[in-house]
Amino acid sequence: MARPKSVLVGEVGPRDGLQIERDFIPTSTKIELIDGLIDAGVKEIEYSSFVSPRAVPQLADAAEVLAGLTRSKPVHLVALVPNAKGAERAVEAGVDELRVFVSSSESHNQKNVNRSVEDSLVGFENVLRIAHQSGTPVSGAIATSFGCPFEGDVPVEQVGRIAKRFADLGMVGVGLGDTTGMATPLLVAERCNHLKTVVPDLPITLHFHNTRGIGLANVMAGLDEGIDRYESSFAGLGGCPFAPGATGNICTEDLVFLLHELGIETGIDLEKLCAVARRVEDVVGRTLPGQVMKAGPRLQLSDMEQVATAVG
Amino acid sequence: MARPKSVLVGEVGPRDGLQIERDFIPTSTKIELIDGLIDAGVKEIEYSSFVSPRAVPQLADAAEVLAGLTRSKPVHLVALVPNAKGAERAVEAGVDELRVFVSSSESHNQKNVNRSVEDSLVGFENVLRIAHQSGTPVSGAIATSFGCPFEGDVPVEQVGRIAKRFADLGMVGVGLGDTTGMATPLLVAERCNHLKTVVPDLPITLHFHNTRGIGLANVMAGLDEGIDRYESSFAGLGGCPFAPGATGNICTEDLVFLLHELGIETGIDLEKLCAVARRVEDVVGRTLPGQVMKAGPRLQLSDMEQVATAVG
Repeated sequence: MARPKSVLVGEVGPRDGLQIERDFIPTSTKIELIDGLIDAGVKEIEYSSFVSPRAVPQLADAAEVLAGLTRSKPVHLVALVPNAKGAERAVEAGVDELRVFVSSSESHNQKNVNRSVEDSLVGFENVLRIAHQSGTPVSGAIATSFGCPFEGDVPVEQVGRIAKRFADLGMVGVGLGDTTGMATPLLVAERCNHLKTVVPDLPITLHFHNTRGIGLANVMAGLDEGIDRYESSFAGLGGCPFAPGATGNICTEDLVFLLHELGIETGIDLEKLCAVARRVEDVVGRTLPGQVMKAGPRLQLSDMEQVATAVG
Repeated sequence: MARPKSVLVGEVGPRDGLQIERDFIPTSTKIELIDGLIDAGVKEIEYSSFVSPRAVPQLADAAEVLAGLTRSKPVHLVALVPNAKGAERAVEAGVDELRVFVSSSESHNQKNVNRSVEDSLVGFENVLRIAHQSGTPVSGAIATSFGCPFEGDVPVEQVGRIAKRFADLGMVGVGLGDTTGMATPLLVAERCNHLKTVVPDLPITLHFHNTRGIGLANVMAGLDEGIDRYESSFAGLGGCPFAPGATGNICTEDLVFLLHELGIETGIDLEKLCAVARRVEDVVGRTLPGQVMKAGPRLQLSDMEQVATAVG
């Protein structure tokens, strides 16, 4: 299948990245980062979550952040919602899209949201009712789509059944989350092909983690399947780095660099994006996994006297 | 083109990785690491360099390391040689293969070895004469094959001309070095296709750096061109990380993980390889970029109470 000519890069850093930061990041700083992404040309941002402020204090300012944005360019601002109450708050705040989530595996869904997969799916009906009253679209994400850290391999049909429920509920898209970095290029091809059969009209988004170093190899596999929506986090921040030193989300700047070098359009200004990523490093106060923000653009010439010792 | 069924993974960590370590690593430790690689099933190792001990004190023990190895399994031990004097020492020590190197770009070759590309190529004639007397094969590596940090893009014909000279000199293989991480999937395809035309009988090895995060995406591109030889470094050590925080060589364990998950054989035991990589981290005393050695094998089940916060 031909690779897409353009790709929608969905930035999840402000939610998936910042949510695990221990120290509260000021609302004004979140606004600055998100407005920076918008100015860089990012078209979709999962910008926060309307979870219980007690469960995730870091994202308690979801409504204030949205209200404070300048939005210098057209952008689609998505908020994660765990339940009907979150949906009401998100709609009230005026988000562009709600996103619900469920794991493909029972044990992960139990540990993550303390209920069965079926109970999660039934709960989505209320979210969709609330959203439809205000004309807000809802998309769904399936965590552990490529494997579960408690159960191991997940049958592709299990993922397909949930995606079908999403379509039947009237959702506008399905995201496959690679929660603990278990995706591989062959699994990407298998899962995308299955979904194209089961939910042919539902746009597929791939959300990879770089936990085992092959996040962008999985993107290559997704592109070969014609998939044109990917999610990533600025500077590679966050996304469940479950082992010491392990990384989580794939990095937005590195993804955008790869896409541009493949001749695929994103509408994003890579240098502006790298500036935001470097600012994220300042904000969290530690080195993050992103590479392009450190190495610079491909044709940035060096004035170093010696860049290599012998061959390399 | 069909992807290869098996791949030769050439480990370059003991040379390309260790050479930039400031503190001298004891000869016995080098022997332990290399014997560990051999025991893990690694079939080719660029294990040291016969450069001037004054220029690279870290590799002054190239002969002693070779003499001290147990070699529990069949392995091909390669040494880098910069000139005729190095070739004599390497042949005397009994290495399995000599490797010479030149940059594709004049300015990088000048800065790296202080001579013109043509002078480097002429110098190789003496190396080949010495090697042939002892029946030792010689391969050649071309640094800056995908771009030069001083000159920018490098015309593919420039790389092809050098590869042709390698073939004419009787070398047994050509390696394309991505010295400062300027390779991209499209350049990989272009360069491999050109070389297949210009030197159809010369095996091609791809040596990528992860400087801009897309090293394994470039491997995917190489596999799609049918290339079945790749070089990498244990734990992702070394390889000219020219910007603070930037990485160098792609990581052997992550490469092997990717290949195995693609159904491509390497003959390498990934768990043993990860144990060696973790030992490398101990030896150099800092966290290294490799991911699989930290996250563990794909189906390693977790007993953590909570591995994810919400979706991911």
